[in-house]
Amino acid sequence: MLNPADDTFLNTLKEKLPEHLFRPLAPSYLEEPRGRYVGQAGAIIAPENTDQVAEVVRLCNEARVGIVPYAGGTGLVGGQLQPDGPAPVLLSLERMTAVRDVFPTENVLVVEAGAILTDVQAAAEEVDRLFPLSLASEGSARIGGLLSTNAGGVNVLRYGNARELCLGIEAVLPNGEIMNTLTRLRKDNTGYDLRDLLIGAEGTLGIITAAALKLHPRPAGEGTALLTVKDPTAALALLALTGKHMAGGVSAFELMHRRAFEFFEETDIPITCPFDETPEWVVLLEIGLPKGIDPQSALEALFEDALEAGLVDDGIVAQSEAQRLAFWAMREEIPTANRRIGSISSHDISVPISSIPDFIEEGGKRLAALGPIRVNCFGHLGDGNLHYNVFPPEGRDRAEFDGIRDQVKRIVHDLVHEMSGSCSAEHGIGRLKVGDLERYGDPAKLNMMRAIKTAVDPHGIMNPGAVLRAD
Amino acid sequence: MLNPADDTFLNTLKEKLPEHLFRPLAPSYLEEPRGRYVGQAGAIIAPENTDQVAEVVRLCNEARVGIVPYAGGTGLVGGQLQPDGPAPVLLSLERMTAVRDVFPTENVLVVEAGAILTDVQAAAEEVDRLFPLSLASEGSARIGGLLSTNAGGVNVLRYGNARELCLGIEAVLPNGEIMNTLTRLRKDNTGYDLRDLLIGAEGTLGIITAAALKLHPRPAGEGTALLTVKDPTAALALLALTGKHMAGGVSAFELMHRRAFEFFEETDIPITCPFDETPEWVVLLEIGLPKGIDPQSALEALFEDALEAGLVDDGIVAQSEAQRLAFWAMREEIPTANRRIGSISSHDISVPISSIPDFIEEGGKRLAALGPIRVNCFGHLGDGNLHYNVFPPEGRDRAEFDGIRDQVKRIVHDLVHEMSGSCSAEHGIGRLKVGDLERYGDPAKLNMMRAIKTAVDPHGIMNPGAVLRAD
Repeated sequence: MLNPADDTFLNTLKEKLPEHLFRPLAPSYLEEPRGRYVGQAGAIIAPENTDQVAEVVRLCNEARVGIVPYAGGTGLVGGQLQPDGPAPVLLSLERMTAVRDVFPTENVLVVEAGAILTDVQAAAEEVDRLFPLSLASEGSARIGGLLSTNAGGVNVLRYGNARELCLGIEAVLPNGEIMNTLTRLRKDNTGYDLRDLLIGAEGTLGIITAAALKLHPRPAGEGTALLTVKDPTAALALLALTGKHMAGGVSAFELMHRRAFEFFEETDIPITCPFDETPEWVVLLEIGLPKGIDPQSALEALFEDALEAGLVDDGIVAQSEAQRLAFWAMREEIPTANRRIGSISSHDISVPISSIPDFIEEGGKRLAALGPIRVNCFGHLGDGNLHYNVFPPEGRDRAEFDGIRDQVKRIVHDLVHEMSGSCSAEHGIGRLKVGDLERYGDPAKLNMMRAIKTAVDPHGIMNPGAVLRAD
Repeated sequence: MLNPADDTFLNTLKEKLPEHLFRPLAPSYLEEPRGRYVGQAGAIIAPENTDQVAEVVRLCNEARVGIVPYAGGTGLVGGQLQPDGPAPVLLSLERMTAVRDVFPTENVLVVEAGAILTDVQAAAEEVDRLFPLSLASEGSARIGGLLSTNAGGVNVLRYGNARELCLGIEAVLPNGEIMNTLTRLRKDNTGYDLRDLLIGAEGTLGIITAAALKLHPRPAGEGTALLTVKDPTAALALLALTGKHMAGGVSAFELMHRRAFEFFEETDIPITCPFDETPEWVVLLEIGLPKGIDPQSALEALFEDALEAGLVDDGIVAQSEAQRLAFWAMREEIPTANRRIGSISSHDISVPISSIPDFIEEGGKRLAALGPIRVNCFGHLGDGNLHYNVFPPEGRDRAEFDGIRDQVKRIVHDLVHEMSGSCSAEHGIGRLKVGDLERYGDPAKLNMMRAIKTAVDPHGIMNPGAVLRAD
């Protein structure tokens, strides 16, 4: 149904748009971090402003040429590249990086979609505010992509996903119209919530070009602790106790398994467990508190209560920024170790929080039936979001396990589905999980999604084949 | 285009549904709090379960008969009744009031759409959790209506609107399909966010039948204070300072004008100002804090800092629950006083928070040009949401001002629009503000809303004439 972005079409584009917007067809735009897909494009265009984005979309819509929106290129599910079909226009937001405005009194920052997350965090810090979105790829991920995938990260427990951090958006719709709903309002009930519809739509309903983002006051004091727990059930009870103590002041509650420390050793990552004996499970906990209370004391009080309740066995409260960073390095180096080992299959799943212990137990059992494998399970316990990754036994290569990859994935996702969970907690559907969405998604929801896609983008030009199968 | 719910259609319904679901055509279903509209209906049905809701919707869709969903009937914009056009079926959720499940560890409660807000708050309290949605009509407002209008209230600053308090919904779509997305997940990026699309759609895209609601830990300690400020600019600076002190622990930040106290006296409401001299402006502030810090001391520390910065003139920290309730009574009795005086026109508006001082000043000026009127302006300063109500001078009746009502409304809404604000901050569009949405709404957004409405509800049966004009 779509036409390729061929030379004729390129000439049309070049008549309407300045020459310097066109970028060479560099391979870096057509790769993704895990190397599963290689993209293709008939043209790569990097507009300087929203009107130019609208012009590109209008021309593509008229000519029935597909558009793949491109932000930081860090997505893990292939949403940012199109491996087959008629060659699309790749529209990169790299030139639209301005912080348009900062409103400290309002706790609002207005930014273009190409702004890099660390730059946005820095702009907030300059006015003594916090933009709490934080994740591994923050040095290259761009706001447009983070919103389009409703990114998560480590602070969701307290501050919400990307969606909850956005007050308003400006977007170019598939017909080329500019939707100017860049509101800074905290309350605005005038019509359907199209902001949240475009957020998480992975560029299939339009292109987000700017956003009004919610900032937060910086907590007066912060504290970090590592606590050892005997099992995930104890970790959950600790989570509830922490909530009771901190009154919403818990910003991160991350679970790590002893496997992580084994992997560090196996892959020569110089991180050692700070406890005398490597515990079965560790919780990394971070809090941000009001004035008038010392976070260290608050964490010690929590630790004592947790010890008394039999929930924790040992614990360390970070006494310095260096120690805090060392704790976080443990958590953040897990993906590095995982990559070095080489996973058979990785899963970004969520289940209802109270089902986590059952999920871990039952998942382990079902996978063990396939033969000897290792699981490294870690993640955002406070959000019910685990990165549940499956590896070969020590000394064996993942290539030997190519034959069971699909089976592993199916076992994990089936179990997630049985437990009313999600097979894409924070990474999105992209192109990787289109089949999973069809298999596990609610049929009425899928029908409504398709009806909306057809109504809003009748020619199917926006990110063809992402989220929903292209016709 | 629609057919009335006439006797023939009633017979069809009665063939498929138990007799006792049909309710008499009682006038109470066809009235609304402000008495602006009188509704009509060919039948009133109160299903007992989601399947029955689906059956009604399916039959209405087949027969092209309109449906008006009815929850607590407390809406202020006429979304819950249809004054003209072919008589619709009124579908009341009053029998679907079950709390289906409570998950304290997850901070989740699953409830049917007919549950009354105070009952939901109580169910949360039973497991030592907080469901923070709180507003004047909480004793009769039902969850389905609160979600369908994305209700706000006094705790939005800390906990968000109804939308932010909902994890998943079950809904009947206009074609009669049941969308089962009653997820309890904190992170779930599988497809378009249809939850947030139905939330706030005021029943025009489907009927929410159940919801998984987010609970919060109860703060370890709470405190309340009344602080006097010389003007809204000082109130804003106080808001920022409070954020800095409390690290997200501010649950309410309400602004009141001295006019409120004048109105209490004029209408014989036995509330007196607790300060020696009635201040120009008062801020009512509530905080909820972690363990290890005394809220009274925290408020006193804030007060001292605010005094030193010249932001406040006087203040009282509540020393008892009785005093706290007395402070809140001041805030909550303002609407009573307003009703007794009788407004020329009321406005539920929001502007970017930092524009509030300008809005109040400029609004006062523009209205003064019409002749002698009085404004009582109060509300959720922390959300940029003011209830900006216009009254006759003392001793005169609002009926004398009927001739300028439209002009007043237009002046206020034009100013709001100039300041990038919203003419419906928390009450919704209903039928009252359809014209305002058309006038002030972003055209591209309106086009996309219409495209979605047509795609999802091609026959226009769902709450005809609400939000979008019926064909």
